[in-house]
Formats: sequence, structure tokens, C-alpha cells
Amino acid sequence: MDLKITMKYINDEKFQLINQTDNGLNVDMYSQNKKENQSPMELLLSALTSCAAVEIVSMIKKRRRNFKNIEAISNGIRAETTPKYFKNIDIKYLIYSNDLKIEEAERFISLSLNKYCSVGASLRKDTTVNHSFEILRD
Amino acid sequence: MDLKITMKYINDEKFQLINQTDNGLNVDMYSQNKKENQSPMELLLSALTSCAAVEIVSMIKKRRRNFKNIEAISNGIRAETTPKYFKNIDIKYLIYSNDLKIEEAERFISLSLNKYCSVGASLRKDTTVNHSFEILRD
Repeated sequence: MDLKITMKYINDEKFQLINQTDNGLNVDMYSQNKKENQSPMELLLSALTSCAAVEIVSMIKKRRRNFKNIEAISNGIRAETTPKYFKNIDIKYLIYSNDLKIEEAERFISLSLNKYCSVGASLRKDTTVNHSFEILRD
Repeated sequence: MDLKITMKYINDEKFQLINQTDNGLNVDMYSQNKKENQSPMELLLSALTSCAAVEIVSMIKKRRRNFKNIEAISNGIRAETTPKYFKNIDIKYLIYSNDLKIEEAERFISLSLNKYCSVGASLRKDTTVNHSFEILRD
């Protein structure tokens, strides 16, 4: 499915983005102490993390494993000179499940990030995306 | 600057993403008629469009040109099979300025998208990013 985004200007460092179903979000480039919204690069990291999560949950459920919750912490390391693209991204998933096996979690996360997730597949090839995980039992 | 995003689960198709300054946003994978938030791929397109816009405005102002407003319409064409990465992105910028020259607009947009914008530089090399623009005078 093709996607369409419309952008409006709020001020030099703040913009509104609206999709085809009229779901809007703001981005800003404000300094840390004034920040109201995510920056464009934070949006990209948010997109990658959640894109893979959708696939991971779907695979856990298809495998009929118990599933209670999933969380993630993502760190993006940027190039030191302009353009400051992501050189390295580390994502750690915390999966709350009583019977998900370690090998299954590893396979589902790896397949999601490297094969199924559209955002991951949209990244440049020399961006290293590493993952780790913990399975939390009751 | 390195970036960190924390993800929380809301339901199988809806997630919350929070940055280091506690600015959150939700993404969902709901069907068109139920959609409440942008999808991960819409987030990526929003990120690219706004990332370049920040640079474009900055360059217009550094050049001391009159600047009143900027808008954009972005279209992303995805691969037809999984992973449905962006094969082609078309962004049209509408710049409201009384004295910005056509050659300047072309150069600023091209430099922003292809050289300065971190999101653009994070995309895979075979994603074609095309741009066009209109300058709107008073």
C-alpha cells in the first residue's frame, strides 16, 4: 500500500505531519530542556522498534505461546559528522511469557528485524542493527 | 548525539514510544477506518519529510530570503512483497516566499534531502527519493 503524508509548518523547528486517515503528529528540533515532541531521527528509531515488535508478537501468537507483554529499549548511535545517520542500532526486547523458548525468541526477533519489518528493510545496508532480549517468566 | 527510545505495549497492534525527554507517541497498525495513529512506515515518511524541511528553512534564512511558510506532500511507494520497504519516495515542497529564486529552492531542497538530512542518509541506497517544488509569491 502506498503512503501519503502532508506536512504543515508550525515554526522553524516544529512541524506537523498528517497521514491519509488524518492522524497527525508533531516533530520538533528543540533542545533537550524544551523538547515537546520527538525529533525526526527519534521517529525513525521509534518506527523501527515498533515495526519489529508487531511482527514479534504476531509470531509468538501464531506459535501459540503464552504472551503477556513486550517492552523494548533502543539505542541509536549516529555518525559524528553530517549527515548524522544511524551507524549502529541496539534494540533489547523484554518479552513476558511463561513458555516461549529462548531459541524461538531469538528466531522471531531476528526474522522480524532482518526480514519482515518494512522499516528495517528501508535502512541503509551498513547500519548495524543488533538485538538482544530477556524472557520474563511469572 | 546518541538517541534512546523506550517502547511499551498497548495491544498487539498498538505501541507507545518514549524518548529520553519523555516525549511519547503511539503507533498503530489498525485498518484505515479504525486508525488512531500513524503506522511505523508513516512515521518514517513523516521523519524524512520534516527532517529535510528543517534544513530547507534554515538555508532560506541563512541566505536572507523572505520566508513565510513551507508545506509538503510526500508519497511513498512500497515494494509489493515482504519486506515492503520504500522503493520510491516523492516529496513536493510548497515554499511561500517573495524573493526565493527557483535555482536556490532547487539547491536547498536537493542539499537537504541528499546531503544534510540524517533521516535521508539513513535510508537504503536503492530507495529513490525524488523532489519537486513550487514557490508561492504573495
